[in-house]
Amino acid sequence: MKIDKLVGDRFKEKPSDCVVDSHALMLRGGYMKGVANGIYSSYMPLRRITRKIENIIREEMDAIDGQEVQFPVVMPASLWQETGRYESIGSELLRFKDRNDIPMVLGMTHEEAAVQLVRDYGNSYSRYPFMIYQIQTKFRDEARPRAGLIRVREFTMKDAYSFHTSQEDLERYYQICYDAYNRIFARCGIPDVVTVKSDSGMMGGSISHEYMLLTPIGEDTLAICSACDYRANMEAAESIIENEMTGESAELTKVYTPNIHTIEEICDFLHTPLIESCKAVVYQKNMTDEYVVVFVRGDLDINETKLTNYLGEGVHPAVITGDCGLHAGYIGPVGLDSVKFTVLYDKSLQNTHNLSCGANEDEYHFTGLKISRDVGDVDYLDLAKIIEGGICPQCGKPAIRISRGIEVGNIFQLGTKYTKSMEMQYLDSEGNLQYPIMGCYGIGVGRLAASVCEAHHDDYGPIWPMSIAPWHVELCCLRADDAETKAVADGLYQSMLDAKVEVLYDDRNIRPGFMFSDADLLGIPVRVIVSPRNLKEGVCEVVTRDKEISEKIPVEQVLDRVQAIICERLK
Amino acid sequence: MKIDKLVGDRFKEKPSDCVVDSHALMLRGGYMKGVANGIYSSYMPLRRITRKIENIIREEMDAIDGQEVQFPVVMPASLWQETGRYESIGSELLRFKDRNDIPMVLGMTHEEAAVQLVRDYGNSYSRYPFMIYQIQTKFRDEARPRAGLIRVREFTMKDAYSFHTSQEDLERYYQICYDAYNRIFARCGIPDVVTVKSDSGMMGGSISHEYMLLTPIGEDTLAICSACDYRANMEAAESIIENEMTGESAELTKVYTPNIHTIEEICDFLHTPLIESCKAVVYQKNMTDEYVVVFVRGDLDINETKLTNYLGEGVHPAVITGDCGLHAGYIGPVGLDSVKFTVLYDKSLQNTHNLSCGANEDEYHFTGLKISRDVGDVDYLDLAKIIEGGICPQCGKPAIRISRGIEVGNIFQLGTKYTKSMEMQYLDSEGNLQYPIMGCYGIGVGRLAASVCEAHHDDYGPIWPMSIAPWHVELCCLRADDAETKAVADGLYQSMLDAKVEVLYDDRNIRPGFMFSDADLLGIPVRVIVSPRNLKEGVCEVVTRDKEISEKIPVEQVLDRVQAIICERLK
Repeated sequence: MKIDKLVGDRFKEKPSDCVVDSHALMLRGGYMKGVANGIYSSYMPLRRITRKIENIIREEMDAIDGQEVQFPVVMPASLWQETGRYESIGSELLRFKDRNDIPMVLGMTHEEAAVQLVRDYGNSYSRYPFMIYQIQTKFRDEARPRAGLIRVREFTMKDAYSFHTSQEDLERYYQICYDAYNRIFARCGIPDVVTVKSDSGMMGGSISHEYMLLTPIGEDTLAICSACDYRANMEAAESIIENEMTGESAELTKVYTPNIHTIEEICDFLHTPLIESCKAVVYQKNMTDEYVVVFVRGDLDINETKLTNYLGEGVHPAVITGDCGLHAGYIGPVGLDSVKFTVLYDKSLQNTHNLSCGANEDEYHFTGLKISRDVGDVDYLDLAKIIEGGICPQCGKPAIRISRGIEVGNIFQLGTKYTKSMEMQYLDSEGNLQYPIMGCYGIGVGRLAASVCEAHHDDYGPIWPMSIAPWHVELCCLRADDAETKAVADGLYQSMLDAKVEVLYDDRNIRPGFMFSDADLLGIPVRVIVSPRNLKEGVCEVVTRDKEISEKIPVEQVLDRVQAIICERLK
Repeated sequence: MKIDKLVGDRFKEKPSDCVVDSHALMLRGGYMKGVANGIYSSYMPLRRITRKIENIIREEMDAIDGQEVQFPVVMPASLWQETGRYESIGSELLRFKDRNDIPMVLGMTHEEAAVQLVRDYGNSYSRYPFMIYQIQTKFRDEARPRAGLIRVREFTMKDAYSFHTSQEDLERYYQICYDAYNRIFARCGIPDVVTVKSDSGMMGGSISHEYMLLTPIGEDTLAICSACDYRANMEAAESIIENEMTGESAELTKVYTPNIHTIEEICDFLHTPLIESCKAVVYQKNMTDEYVVVFVRGDLDINETKLTNYLGEGVHPAVITGDCGLHAGYIGPVGLDSVKFTVLYDKSLQNTHNLSCGANEDEYHFTGLKISRDVGDVDYLDLAKIIEGGICPQCGKPAIRISRGIEVGNIFQLGTKYTKSMEMQYLDSEGNLQYPIMGCYGIGVGRLAASVCEAHHDDYGPIWPMSIAPWHVELCCLRADDAETKAVADGLYQSMLDAKVEVLYDDRNIRPGFMFSDADLLGIPVRVIVSPRNLKEGVCEVVTRDKEISEKIPVEQVLDRVQAIICERLK
């Protein structure tokens, strides 16, 4: 195709609302256009990229015996009521009513639909295992869409669901899928994706992994051990704190601390480090607004996912009212009403003394807190976020590094959460009714495209890997007003078309700088430049977008050379 | 793939709620499963069919310079407010609010999104013409989904939008697209699809065509001339009535007609044919509930589409209240308040006399009505439905036949309705701002699959054309418990896999009748049967689902023969 007919504008200026490179480059390169907050239309170059990604995913899913199916985008709420997720998921699940006032949802994931599809089929052990998948549009009403295709509301996703008659068989297949995912990311040009253990969150189940592309612009925070192979999502990483009580235990002493409201202020005031304080973090349960007071060592933060998992329900930061019985800024463990409030202690407070903390009385704090003495025996829970330099839960060394990453895929062992709640059963070989065990496996197509762009770009545009590039070759005719040059370029274009090379032809009569900046934005791997100067020597320039190759090739050998490069890079 | 791992149940009994064969066969054959009213999930065989259809469509769209893009399923209402369709379309447009209370819609068509995508790009005449298309999920909240995939609420559609700088250029491209559509339907196995002129309805514009598969189960009614090539959707077909006044004009005479309320009853009572009566059909405008009284010859019916187009707004059958001034059952032209009510006359009443009609007085009718004498000069409009045996608007012969058809595609000349309302403009070569002219072109993928099934099936299942068949070959091993037979069948299976033949292998140890009824339901074009009896002669049976081929082929030649049949049929 010729670039002068390619719909979409390319431009130089970075749009002001872009915080990540892939977002800016995909807007600047005419890949996509915003339609609403977190909702985009794709132009042809991006659609070609996503189709190639979809085909790679499809091939790998088919290769592990996946059966492509299709679930609806719009589902009846009744299906989600069977599993309780209609109620338990927040407003990211878009709910509405159809013309007959029947409550419906937009699919943000399809466990319910998957079970509904195979509930009758999977009635005998002999039909297991099987895996079904789809590549389909999903909608998730994100509160804060951001970073272009990294976090959107509407997206295309491959979601796969496997069904098994034993945990062993699930684990066997989980490993197969784990490997297939690595192949997918490698084929798409990001072989360096790492897997981390993650929290299963609303999906249910226990073991799950996220595939992470490590990049500073990532939304997820990872704990990675530099001494062993431990990798975990911050949300799932156990925080290990080893305290040692040194010195004497001071007495619990009330101190007058007017106008001091934060743990930082009290430590400042007392000239003690944060590590010698006991901080109160207050939440409210989403359903009942009941207060939950979590105490943690002053230098640490609460991991809300761990807290939610422990409580078994969602929480939000508390609004502390005047009559609730809590003294904002002065909350502490001593004398706090543990019947009226849910009071929890993080493990970072175990084996400590001489802490400062609130005195549950306006304008007063305590010093010398020793929980075991002043409060008594309490349960210490893992509720804190793991920290840089923290202790690795696997090897025990203080070698945790905190990195950021984009989650490009995830795999979950779901167990029987969905099959039980939706009453999907099979007869085992002994004639007993059993619930099948599920796994599920997701990859967001658009996010993967953006991630590849994050991993492979320069200041001038994306550098697409051959496997997912919108076209393989960009043919640039410099000086289209020169008859001989144009004739040679036209001939090359036709020969490439005849050879079924995916070629984009730029024969616009424009300045080379303009032509090349367009080409950089399109990020096509191979560029063939036809110019009067080179033609004097009977050659064309064949260069690659990644600068690995820059050659002068006789005109009559250009097609062969280009095909060889494509072939080599598609291996 | 082996059939014993194919997810989905096949069964013999016709589901009770199926009124068309394709619906019943697609449920019985494990192609799909209902999720909600008019919403289905697809199993693998249907997904394979729809993907092949999508690829055929994609190839043909690419071949006419279409650029594949993707629009969102979820769009902001503001986009639809720009064109006024947010208000003008009824409840088939699904409206809802997102988490921030912003009104959104589910895309049922994408003219607005298409203009939004190219509004900035198309700013100069030099960028025209261009065509963009997508293959994407759509949702249309149908009041009465029916007939399986023929009329659903959620569906996959290819929708294309072309942009032009002149009506001539639109017409040129419209013809190119017209031909591409014929190729698509031919390649999918229904070359006998006919085109009919249609009403553009809510799409705006004037000239449009529907591609119709003629079948008694079709939802659309077509007027087809048996004397010339005139074909039109009933909604668009002009009704031509030629009346001749014979004999004397009788006087207008009031007749006491107690308990007579319908035009049939009055004609019965008077012993006159329906053709000698003037029927009143009463509607109310949707917006204002204002009454619209349409008079038409007693034997004809009103075409509500024509009426709606004439009025420029929607209507519904009237609820005639006691105080509205209309006498239900006795409404006639004479003395009817044409200020209070909109009163319209169909052309079928032109040049008539001696009609019976209501007298606008309870229990009284008139005979001897001659509108020109008793009412005066009125406008006669084309508001009636064309009838079987009616006059062809093209050749003038009374040769109209009424047929039914499924609309498998449509193409519209949209004009500037969308570009004007959405302020999309370009500079022409003289520097003047102009609105581009649009065409749009749709094909429903699932409906096309169902239509092919309607056109090609027998009592036992679909007979898929090679081009869209879920697999090309079904390999049946009769007596999988016989070691030699199984070994030969396994060998053939492997050789077909190696040759990349799309093969479904049935090596279940089941009765042949059961195996063949499954095979009939899957409708795979070529069947290879390996059985002990045939192996005694060293042959396999190669038969086609359409019964055209039934051969015994030596085992070692089976692969070649099968590949030859596939090749021949894919041409």
